[in-house]
Amino acid sequence: MSYARQMLDTYPADIAVDKAQLATAIDALTACSQACTACADACLSESGEAMPHLARCIRDDLDCADVCDTTARVLSRHTGYDAALTRAQVQAALQAAKSCADSCGEHAEMHEHCRICAQACTEVVEALTALLDHLQPSGDAPSTPSQTAPQVS
Amino acid sequence: MSYARQMLDTYPADIAVDKAQLATAIDALTACSQACTACADACLSESGEAMPHLARCIRDDLDCADVCDTTARVLSRHTGYDAALTRAQVQAALQAAKSCADSCGEHAEMHEHCRICAQACTEVVEALTALLDHLQPSGDAPSTPSQTAPQVS
Amino acid sequence: MSYARQMLDTYPADIAVDKAQLATAIDALTACSQACTACADACLSESGEAMPHLARCIRDDLDCADVCDTTARVLSRHTGYDAALTRAQVQAALQAAKSCADSCGEHAEMHEHCRICAQACTEVVEALTALLDHLQPSGDAPSTPSQTAPQVS
Amino acid sequence: MSYARQMLDTYPADIAVDKAQLATAIDALTACSQACTACADACLSESGEAMPHLARCIRDDLDCADVCDTTARVLSRHTGYDAALTRAQVQAALQAAKSCADSCGEHAEMHEHCRICAQACTEVVEALTALLDHLQPSGDAPSTPSQTAPQVS
Repeated sequence: MSYARQMLDTYPADIAVDKAQLATAIDALTACSQACTACADACLSESGEAMPHLARCIRDDLDCADVCDTTARVLSRHTGYDAALTRAQVQAALQAAKSCADSCGEHAEMHEHCRICAQACTEVVEALTALLDHLQPSGDAPSTPSQTAPQVS
Repeated sequence: MSYARQMLDTYPADIAVDKAQLATAIDALTACSQACTACADACLSESGEAMPHLARCIRDDLDCADVCDTTARVLSRHTGYDAALTRAQVQAALQAAKSCADSCGEHAEMHEHCRICAQACTEVVEALTALLDHLQPSGDAPSTPSQTAPQVS
Repeated sequence: MSYARQMLDTYPADIAVDKAQLATAIDALTACSQACTACADACLSESGEAMPHLARCIRDDLDCADVCDTTARVLSRHTGYDAALTRAQVQAALQAAKSCADSCGEHAEMHEHCRICAQACTEVVEALTALLDHLQPSGDAPSTPSQTAPQVS
Repeated sequence: MSYARQMLDTYPADIAVDKAQLATAIDALTACSQACTACADACLSESGEAMPHLARCIRDDLDCADVCDTTARVLSRHTGYDAALTRAQVQAALQAAKSCADSCGEHAEMHEHCRICAQACTEVVEALTALLDHLQPSGDAPSTPSQTAPQVS
């Protein structure tokens, strides 16, 4: 149902990153953000005894949903994939997804929604780790923003 | 790749709306938001002659991306589907998707990314129109918010 | 600290809505979104006994934060203030802010963060009610999106 | 009009970061996100001759708006300010604000909205640079997420 790959294939300028890998990352981020929003809400519907133990899980869900949403948007704009921003935002999403996978993973046996959410987070970690290897190190990034932007003809 | 349906199936409380229809709506909104973000960026990579004619298309893409994102989140929280908020937010998304489908549709023959984006918007219109029929009319909604919220046991 | 008014004053095209009223609405939405995000997190830091009673409040905070964020963005784009989208999104924000003001209001005496958040929501309701009176009724809106968009010279 | 400081003062658990500095950062991020959204829209209302030269500026505005929004939310949740996520997300926002300040700065003499937006970005850079000095280095962060979260009594 996602259009990420089709949108990459019809982009009217060059994209410096492998399109299959990029589409996989965008789709994983989008799916994870939705799963985290739903998992936080499911935690709030657990019993009054269980819920207080889920406070950290809910927080990590909310952080992860917001960070994944923004990272999917940054990756959907081809501002220049060697840019320091892309690397920094991908690294933030890696942290958010790892923390949330841990939090939800602790409850995976008791709550099915946490198990599924932890899986969605793990897929983000895998997709972003693969992508990060192919993003130009920030040390080698062009020093002025102008050089990283697509040129207007 | 989406987990919307699995998250609905593992929700620990009752959901008053058809789950298949709800998952379809959430997935359509999520896919459309990504397509709109990518389409706005693709429009900005078109030639200097074409771009000024795409200003309205870019704006409608940006509005539609934001409104679809928020609507997907509201629908991913099962705050009580008879609530006036759900209906109002779904109606806003319907307007955003219709406007964006029109704007992108005008450029569909010239720009493939606009054609795909218009299709993503049309799927949102279809999914939300189907969903709206099954959401309780706001006139019949419980008058106090407390009655629409899942109960904590 | 907000730049909403300055950005309106330097906008290079006509804006059909009173700028003071529009800036007040944008600022109220932005402040409310932040207060709701912080209130949801504060609720999650309350004692294990209090937290389960705050589940609806947390949900309404999260919905209201997302809806206010998106509404502030739609109002920050001057796509044509007679447009059906603007009215629909403003109406969704009115619903979200009313529900959240009610939920947080119920806990205002016990939790200071709920009292402040309810106040932020009430300011949104007031600002959007005032704004809505000056937005063209959707019945009179131009029928094609093209007519509502600023023209490119 | 912001409630960031009041929400910090009424938070029911300890916050490990200077509250004045944190409130300043949250307010700067919120104001910057709004200015960037408005600046992108203002660029799209410039003449057909000027607009193509503003493509990079619009992109940087859109990235900066999204990244600042999410960073304001992460900082509004007190998930544990020594956490690796907070540092990583703050660093991404620093990059986004620096790039956008550069892009808008190039057009500051021609477009007042770019001048104001560059100022909003510069305030984010200053506020986050000050905050980052007081966030625990990730190398010293507790190794398990559980230790960084507020305890439920």
